Amino acid sequence: MIDQLDGARSAGAALVVFPELAIFGYPPKDLVLRRDLVQRNQLALERIATECTDISAVVGYVARDASGAGTGLLNAAAFCADGRVQGTYAKMLLPTYDVFDERRYFTPGRDVATFELPNTEPPIKIGLSICEDLWNDRQFEGRSVYGIDPVERTVARGAEILINLSASPYRAGIQTHREALFAKQVKDRGIPLVLVNQVGGNDDLVFDGASLALDSQGQVLARAKAFDEDLLLVDLHGDNRVEPYPDRIESIRRALVLGIGDYLDKCGFASTVIGLSGGIDSAVTAALAVQAVGPKRVQGVAMPSRYSSPHSVEDAQALARNLDIDFRSIPIESAHRAMEATMAESFAAASAGSSMIAEENIQARIRGGILMALSNKFGSLLLTTGNKSELAVGYCTLYGDMCGGLAVLSDVPKTVVYALARHINGSCDRPLIPQRTIDKPPSAELKEGQADQDTLPPYDTLDAILEQYVEQECSVDAIADQGFDRVVVERVVGMVDRSEYKRNQAAIGIKVTSRAFGSGRRMPVAARFR
Amino acid sequence: MIDQLDGARSAGAALVVFPELAIFGYPPKDLVLRRDLVQRNQLALERIATECTDISAVVGYVARDASGAGTGLLNAAAFCADGRVQGTYAKMLLPTYDVFDERRYFTPGRDVATFELPNTEPPIKIGLSICEDLWNDRQFEGRSVYGIDPVERTVARGAEILINLSASPYRAGIQTHREALFAKQVKDRGIPLVLVNQVGGNDDLVFDGASLALDSQGQVLARAKAFDEDLLLVDLHGDNRVEPYPDRIESIRRALVLGIGDYLDKCGFASTVIGLSGGIDSAVTAALAVQAVGPKRVQGVAMPSRYSSPHSVEDAQALARNLDIDFRSIPIESAHRAMEATMAESFAAASAGSSMIAEENIQARIRGGILMALSNKFGSLLLTTGNKSELAVGYCTLYGDMCGGLAVLSDVPKTVVYALARHINGSCDRPLIPQRTIDKPPSAELKEGQADQDTLPPYDTLDAILEQYVEQECSVDAIADQGFDRVVVERVVGMVDRSEYKRNQAAIGIKVTSRAFGSGRRMPVAARFR
Repeated sequence: MIDQLDGARSAGAALVVFPELAIFGYPPKDLVLRRDLVQRNQLALERIATECTDISAVVGYVARDASGAGTGLLNAAAFCADGRVQGTYAKMLLPTYDVFDERRYFTPGRDVATFELPNTEPPIKIGLSICEDLWNDRQFEGRSVYGIDPVERTVARGAEILINLSASPYRAGIQTHREALFAKQVKDRGIPLVLVNQVGGNDDLVFDGASLALDSQGQVLARAKAFDEDLLLVDLHGDNRVEPYPDRIESIRRALVLGIGDYLDKCGFASTVIGLSGGIDSAVTAALAVQAVGPKRVQGVAMPSRYSSPHSVEDAQALARNLDIDFRSIPIESAHRAMEATMAESFAAASAGSSMIAEENIQARIRGGILMALSNKFGSLLLTTGNKSELAVGYCTLYGDMCGGLAVLSDVPKTVVYALARHINGSCDRPLIPQRTIDKPPSAELKEGQADQDTLPPYDTLDAILEQYVEQECSVDAIADQGFDRVVVERVVGMVDRSEYKRNQAAIGIKVTSRAFGSGRRMPVAARFR
Repeated sequence: MIDQLDGARSAGAALVVFPELAIFGYPPKDLVLRRDLVQRNQLALERIATECTDISAVVGYVARDASGAGTGLLNAAAFCADGRVQGTYAKMLLPTYDVFDERRYFTPGRDVATFELPNTEPPIKIGLSICEDLWNDRQFEGRSVYGIDPVERTVARGAEILINLSASPYRAGIQTHREALFAKQVKDRGIPLVLVNQVGGNDDLVFDGASLALDSQGQVLARAKAFDEDLLLVDLHGDNRVEPYPDRIESIRRALVLGIGDYLDKCGFASTVIGLSGGIDSAVTAALAVQAVGPKRVQGVAMPSRYSSPHSVEDAQALARNLDIDFRSIPIESAHRAMEATMAESFAAASAGSSMIAEENIQARIRGGILMALSNKFGSLLLTTGNKSELAVGYCTLYGDMCGGLAVLSDVPKTVVYALARHINGSCDRPLIPQRTIDKPPSAELKEGQADQDTLPPYDTLDAILEQYVEQECSVDAIADQGFDRVVVERVVGMVDRSEYKRNQAAIGIKVTSRAFGSGRRMPVAARFR
């Protein structure tokens, strides 16, 4: 942060703005409950403030609430100038929906704050706000559900520029929504906005940056890079850099690439290992991993069984060749036979005609064991390859193909996995993902002649129903009313509900939709209710 | 609920009180975000209200907030009399700490509510409150951190009896804390209290019932059964039933037994399967499972390897005999050898002297695979046997011994597992858990001559440090200042921090301490910070 401060000063800036909770990084989760860490964040703020000579800074940090109200902590922004903290603003609107838990940690601020920049002529009065303060788009009959509008009060207090510190997680389509929302907010108030958004991946969340300056008419004056760190110099009365924001499918790709890279680096993994089935999910996962950390840090492993088609290993190998990654094939037949023999006596007691799911899962779990053995032996992160559609309906094996530290595609519906594959291939000189991998009917290959569509509705139907049920929280009635076959809807909803226990133990997945499984969706497991 | 209402009426009660959110069950989590379910909960309330003839009822339910403020939902209590809902009170203090997320779902109520019982002579005015409204024990400099005191306002409004609907999760020692706290609240206000607490297990939480009536001096007039459903008739001016509350170790046992039984029944499992190592964790888990659901619904499986001591299978078998459960031994040697052969070529590339953790974990994962195969084939719930101490420091194998749907002991420190074993044996005619299982030094038996204490500090030291770090959120400095060896503290804290990724995929565990891993402790995984 001090390096960036120095860079801003050298570039002639009067003010540098950091994102929400920049010192901790967002979301800090229960780390903010530790007094020693809050203390260290305060010392860091003071250290940064002493560097604020010939430049001012707005710094997101965790402040202690001297009143002791609520949690005793504030999600705060410090205004630093002349070598010290001049004052603090505390976020007034604390979100508690989706992935946000801010009331767990923070007490809402009670008043707005404006500050005069000491090093501009004439002095400019800035008004501070933090993320949700500006969004404030949850409405009921035209009123904010929060019951207050901090931005309106800040403007009434005489702010000439609105500053917003954000940590706004990426989801597909969000930037269009943001810019329309912010333009409206700015036009209504008639003052310009400078908004700084966090960038980088933290567990399931990817922050996409793309910080903005808007003039008082809501026009975009400046835009920072998306999915990358950037120091954007903004002159509200001059020319500015306006970086493009990628289109929908490219933004999903960038989010996944950033999410993989940051997870790997922050966890300290030198390399990744991926099970390559020859299918599209593992192919896309591997391609994204290579784009994130380069081919030398990615290992692909095929684990053919007696049920694998000849094309499975060929396609996996072709992919590895295209991606220029290390590849090995570890056949599972002998381990499979050993496990069958191990279970034979116990399984003999099962009633005739009992489900063969147990037998199928044995293969998936041997593969999970092989990949984890490689992960343990070589310190590689195992990337999980399952997509959102199969995780939703439980078409996956717990401790089998669900093994891994990061589930790259677990918020990407199968139809979007296909779109990603075509997009990745279309963006390179030569196709990375073998065409046969894209064209062949998807199969788990855990028994003879198996195909996903034996068990599941066609993926375009499935994904449309899942979008209504998982993202929109629609009832069966409401979904059927949209023209879907009611029997299919009930079957899908039943599969989703019965799979909570699997998702409860799923790897962290990278959120790219409005509602991902994980921290943004909290369902009871033991619920008899249907 | 209608059956209980009828029972209360037959017993001559004027009022029947149900717990917090009784219609949904607490905590309903994101189910309350579904409009169709909230609608059904309202229909259920109306149905109950029509049954309120010659008796009144207070019913916990989810109410829509007509003002549309906040989330649009209220954590409410309906007063039902004369066949209809007479009015509603909405919880004013919404907890957001530990396992509670109430601001995610609800908007705080804005006013207190009192109601006159129509069927008492003279009419009695009751004041409603919900759980945290009465606790309100988070203080800063002598003031409630919530800034308001709903109970005080209710009393000022003329309430003659305070009613509290609770869903207060069990933790060891909580009932003593509750009764002291409530006694103080009641004495300060000079009115009696009738408090009804939910009972039963919901995922990680066990609600222990033990509903109470206190007179205006804070004396316990009546206490319902702990850990069991009960219809307790209370006569504030007469004699009442006062059920005992079990002592600390017995209350932990009851909580675990209730948690297992309700998880099994609510998920619809007919049986459980448990890996028996001959060690104390699996022995205590099996004994508790038998106490929860009976010996016919429990299967024990020993899975000896080349590193298993002769006493391991003997002790497992003796335990199974004592518990009268089905037992089988499934040796893992052939699967172990097959996996070693499968990995040999890959492992050959590892540097000489590399860690043998990968080899050890292979055995744990084969065992996990065997148990899951039995679970899948016979529809049994696999119970995980790991204790809190090993889960804290990561002394467990992901997808190995961590496999399972419910981790019975994952909030029970190892020292308390020993206490439970002695308590269980001491409470029966003959010891259930073999004495050798209690006496022998704990070992994972994943390599020759292994013992837990090769890697971990003695369990009494470890558990004391973990209590400070995990439950009290103390810093290394603060723990060392209490007289622990700083080097040991740093090593333990480092192990805890590095194991977040394992706990992130852990089975649901039953909470019995003030801070369990799981929904009450939310840590980032990818955190470079130490």
